[in-house]
Amino acid sequence: MADVTPGSAVKTVPAPKDQHLRDLADCIRFLSMDAVQLAKSGHPGAPMGMADIAVVLFKDFMKFDAAEPKWFDRDRFILSNGHGSMLLYSLLYLLGYKDMSIEDLKTFRQVGSKTAGHPEYGHAAGIETTTGPLGQGVANSVGFSLAEAIMSAKFGKDLVNHHTYVFLGDGCLQEGISQEAISLAGHYKLGNLICFWDHNSITIDGDTSLSTSEDVIGRFKAEDWHTLEIDGHDTDAIRDAIKAAQAVTDKPTLIACKTIIGFGFPTKAGTHKAHSDAPGEEEIAGARKLLSWDAPPFVIPENLLTEWRAIGARGAEARTAWEERFKSAPAEFQRRVKNELPADWRDAIAAARKEFIDSGKEMATRSASGAVLNHLFDAIPEMLGGSADLTPSNNTKAKNQTEIHPGAFDGSYMHYGIREHGMAAALNGLALHGGLIPYGGTFMCFSDYCRPSIRLAALMEIRSIFVMTHDSIGLGEDGPTHQPVEHLAAMRAMPNLGVYRPGDPVETAECWEMVLEQPHRPAFLALSRQPMPLLRKEAGTENKSAKGAYVLLEAEGGERQVTLFATGSELHMAVEARTTLQADGIPTAVVSMPSRLHFEMQDAAYKKSVIGTNKARVAVEAAVELGWERYIGDYGRFVGMHSFGASGKIGDVYKKFGITADAVVAAAKESLAEVG
Amino acid sequence: MADVTPGSAVKTVPAPKDQHLRDLADCIRFLSMDAVQLAKSGHPGAPMGMADIAVVLFKDFMKFDAAEPKWFDRDRFILSNGHGSMLLYSLLYLLGYKDMSIEDLKTFRQVGSKTAGHPEYGHAAGIETTTGPLGQGVANSVGFSLAEAIMSAKFGKDLVNHHTYVFLGDGCLQEGISQEAISLAGHYKLGNLICFWDHNSITIDGDTSLSTSEDVIGRFKAEDWHTLEIDGHDTDAIRDAIKAAQAVTDKPTLIACKTIIGFGFPTKAGTHKAHSDAPGEEEIAGARKLLSWDAPPFVIPENLLTEWRAIGARGAEARTAWEERFKSAPAEFQRRVKNELPADWRDAIAAARKEFIDSGKEMATRSASGAVLNHLFDAIPEMLGGSADLTPSNNTKAKNQTEIHPGAFDGSYMHYGIREHGMAAALNGLALHGGLIPYGGTFMCFSDYCRPSIRLAALMEIRSIFVMTHDSIGLGEDGPTHQPVEHLAAMRAMPNLGVYRPGDPVETAECWEMVLEQPHRPAFLALSRQPMPLLRKEAGTENKSAKGAYVLLEAEGGERQVTLFATGSELHMAVEARTTLQADGIPTAVVSMPSRLHFEMQDAAYKKSVIGTNKARVAVEAAVELGWERYIGDYGRFVGMHSFGASGKIGDVYKKFGITADAVVAAAKESLAEVG
Repeated sequence: MADVTPGSAVKTVPAPKDQHLRDLADCIRFLSMDAVQLAKSGHPGAPMGMADIAVVLFKDFMKFDAAEPKWFDRDRFILSNGHGSMLLYSLLYLLGYKDMSIEDLKTFRQVGSKTAGHPEYGHAAGIETTTGPLGQGVANSVGFSLAEAIMSAKFGKDLVNHHTYVFLGDGCLQEGISQEAISLAGHYKLGNLICFWDHNSITIDGDTSLSTSEDVIGRFKAEDWHTLEIDGHDTDAIRDAIKAAQAVTDKPTLIACKTIIGFGFPTKAGTHKAHSDAPGEEEIAGARKLLSWDAPPFVIPENLLTEWRAIGARGAEARTAWEERFKSAPAEFQRRVKNELPADWRDAIAAARKEFIDSGKEMATRSASGAVLNHLFDAIPEMLGGSADLTPSNNTKAKNQTEIHPGAFDGSYMHYGIREHGMAAALNGLALHGGLIPYGGTFMCFSDYCRPSIRLAALMEIRSIFVMTHDSIGLGEDGPTHQPVEHLAAMRAMPNLGVYRPGDPVETAECWEMVLEQPHRPAFLALSRQPMPLLRKEAGTENKSAKGAYVLLEAEGGERQVTLFATGSELHMAVEARTTLQADGIPTAVVSMPSRLHFEMQDAAYKKSVIGTNKARVAVEAAVELGWERYIGDYGRFVGMHSFGASGKIGDVYKKFGITADAVVAAAKESLAEVG
Repeated sequence: MADVTPGSAVKTVPAPKDQHLRDLADCIRFLSMDAVQLAKSGHPGAPMGMADIAVVLFKDFMKFDAAEPKWFDRDRFILSNGHGSMLLYSLLYLLGYKDMSIEDLKTFRQVGSKTAGHPEYGHAAGIETTTGPLGQGVANSVGFSLAEAIMSAKFGKDLVNHHTYVFLGDGCLQEGISQEAISLAGHYKLGNLICFWDHNSITIDGDTSLSTSEDVIGRFKAEDWHTLEIDGHDTDAIRDAIKAAQAVTDKPTLIACKTIIGFGFPTKAGTHKAHSDAPGEEEIAGARKLLSWDAPPFVIPENLLTEWRAIGARGAEARTAWEERFKSAPAEFQRRVKNELPADWRDAIAAARKEFIDSGKEMATRSASGAVLNHLFDAIPEMLGGSADLTPSNNTKAKNQTEIHPGAFDGSYMHYGIREHGMAAALNGLALHGGLIPYGGTFMCFSDYCRPSIRLAALMEIRSIFVMTHDSIGLGEDGPTHQPVEHLAAMRAMPNLGVYRPGDPVETAECWEMVLEQPHRPAFLALSRQPMPLLRKEAGTENKSAKGAYVLLEAEGGERQVTLFATGSELHMAVEARTTLQADGIPTAVVSMPSRLHFEMQDAAYKKSVIGTNKARVAVEAAVELGWERYIGDYGRFVGMHSFGASGKIGDVYKKFGITADAVVAAAKESLAEVG
């Protein structure tokens, strides 16, 4: 083991077991140092500490082909400690990924470069997920690993048989989300998941002993993991550990790797000074001496680069053999791997609509969503359901979905437990892996617990689907801790997130159609606990929600004087208010706005046709006003929430907060009076 | 041990060790059943399962006096599994808390009642914290426990010497936040913290085995806890366990209590059917028979009520003795217990202002905040600092603060580790306990990790202070994962949360003053990484930020034609733009809006005087537009973010997204042209 005394620098480097492997690792070390130094910003410590592990993993184990980075059956490599991004970028360059040139490394952390401060999904092939917010990568990995297990159970090991390898740091472990992930992975017996803990005893504030006394191995054992402890610079030990991990197929493995942060730095190694920031020319010069490295910055000696490139091409044969098998794979597998929906999937939406219209019944949108899912799952078998222990409330389990059990992955429904954050991050991993369309439910108030993962889905532009029921004070008795009030505004503030709040069963079907149409946008479905009447009774399959907002009922008996905007469970309230206003001789339109985001994508003419040229306007939504000012304008009124909610019967709660059709009528008349 | 077979009902009740204690427990059980049945909503399972534990704890151990529920040195009782609220309400009634009558129990879950679906802090004395969102209570408890330890270390055991007792369920344990809490508590050796796990093997979806395989004891041991396992219905075992827990003073204790959910129900006990919802008259009748309980609904037999009331009064003597000691306690202790600030605390704000003005230097608001804290801590020793492993970046450690170490609580600064959520919940517990004013820092982007706890602070109306630095794309190289874009809007959407974004060092001091002035409002300080010029150079101590927004620079050379709104690091941009516009002959005002919430509290006349009657307006903020429409109105323009950020040098990033003084000038001219 490397001799690391917390708080003091490691001024020598342990002799390598294999100098050649050390040289390969030093390629990563110097590229990382050089790039951070050039950028004058970044995190050299982790790449330098984990370089030896990366060498053994990629040289001897990783199943991949740098020439075809999207090969479906590749092993996934997840850098959960994303601040160590130069480790990944260095690897991609060394291995010969076409997306990553030496120039890209030189523009590390510059605007427009592929090499962002933290790995950004979509910037370059080989970046499997966006990491940086700590704990997210390891929690994504549960999704990657689950996806492999589920696809493998259905289509066989000839087509799907790979591992998920994860690098993670102390920060990942301290974040609560990692516990949810570890616990889920252990419970479900995800044997294809192998994690390497960069046990360097250092965080930004100083030694980890400042803030933690955890027995990490004990913690993982308690979650039923296979655990190993090694010297993270001993290449033989690394190799043996990975072999042992692969041999245990009914448990995930944690390999605790004792490492020296900033391995090779002459004065900063082993201390928190190695964690972040440019090391300085002098420190790098010292590292060159210590590691006997002669090459200039950003230059990799040819023999080493050649070997790295050979490692990058090592999987070509396996990949082409798989491609042969793929040609004769089931059509469903081929379709799912290509991320294509079945040709007739929209029939499921049409069938749900017809069901709603035929019945004509009032219905909670969470129930309507459940009914849509019954049809959708039959049409789209890759839909993977789940809930954070609220299955009966979220209506997330389609009637033909079967449960996935620990070690038995031939199902389509997950019990994520009371782990909203872990679920959301797993959904991201599932979506990123491909072959599945994951959705998961909880109470909308607890979307706050998922928010960091929802944000990453939005940033990555992936179709994770968050089914959020009990979407307002309409939740009733559970009270303000469970009643979302600010969540609609807070979620609408997030770029690229589709926030849908359907106002009746038909709109619910339309919103699900929108969700599935957009593979590059995560969805946040805000669904009611309480029933609401069927408002959309027309035949046909035109998706009126698709433009985000539309005129549900135009003004009658004259030019439009008032526009009422509403969403979700308040839509029928606006319709009632309109009836009164029309009876009072005020031509009033009702605009339904299930998705603000989609409405904002429309052209000015359409927007104007919906909003109207009249200035008297009212928005009604059982949530805070923030954002509605945009539509109601200078003379408008808002009927909604101005505080947290209250525990009580739904009708009483709505009355308490003055969200009623009468209040909408009064507000409309006020607005009209102000317009004059 | 009770014989519980997962999935099958427990149709008999184990014989009690002590029938009298069973009778006392049955008081809780029947009140809980009756209230849930009357409300036709609620969660009877946990109160019925944990009633025996509650009896032993309150009868033999809890230090409290129902007549003086706010006694500072009382033990704190935290119901982390807050859905079991009827356990707490029943206890408060039985113990004779004046705030809780039998009528209150009969209005369980009705609008206006004290007995909300989940315990709401402030509704009745004896409710120490709002729980319901799972895991929050146990994480609050770390704060309660820390507060006791810190106050005790400073003022001695004669004045401060109590325990924090926590009831928690499987949901609490599955939530990631509990891991952060457990890990923190174990690390800091919080020996005064004793938790009871309601190990009933049931969640809403069914048996816990559906979603977890955790060795809970192993998990707690890994975090250095003292652990015990008992039958949660064996009153002798419960008593012994609490004694053993109290004897271990250098470790928190987990007592795993094997319980039967819905203990006493004839068909639902031991199954997930006992968890939620009204049990039905028949089930309650069966429970009456099984437990030989003759009293009608909501009636407690007199002998039992008398004994309960005696338990409630048991602590009177200890309390009055403490009150005597309090009279001769140090003035600082008396002041802090009364939640009063030192008389001269504002001098610290004035000193910081003077320092900024004398230096005249440009400064990041995070640095200004650090400078303010240097003065504030010297003036207000109860300020307890901390950071989630970003101390050097958050500038949260005042120069005279000393670190708290495991088991050594005579300090004023906490290393919370990379546990943003656990930190935020601990801040809530610290604030609720009293005697300390807690604040904690992280990068603002990771406020998403803290959001559920920030929400509870806002709902509870307590002064938890969240110091959020690196508040925009101005963070630069770390890129979009670390750049808040939607967070300002998302936080402003939250009722009662003070969101402050100061625009220069003086405003930073003013915002801190506002934070400390408001004991019933949590604070969210959005502070920049990058420096900005000193804009407020006037002498004096008038707090211009206190009204939320004010005219920083009035239009000159004619009636105001344009209003520029800005906050934080964009304020100086607005000032630059104004210079250009004025030079172009356009009288332009700059409005600084450090707190939207406080501006909204002002009267219409003041608001109008700030916004102006002119229609040409521009808001500039390096964040999304949501909410600014309210101020810029129908003709306004917004200069800010419309997407996630990007990794790069700060200047390049601002340019890429078009957030510049030139853009503000152009937008102002556009707006002016539209007004015509």
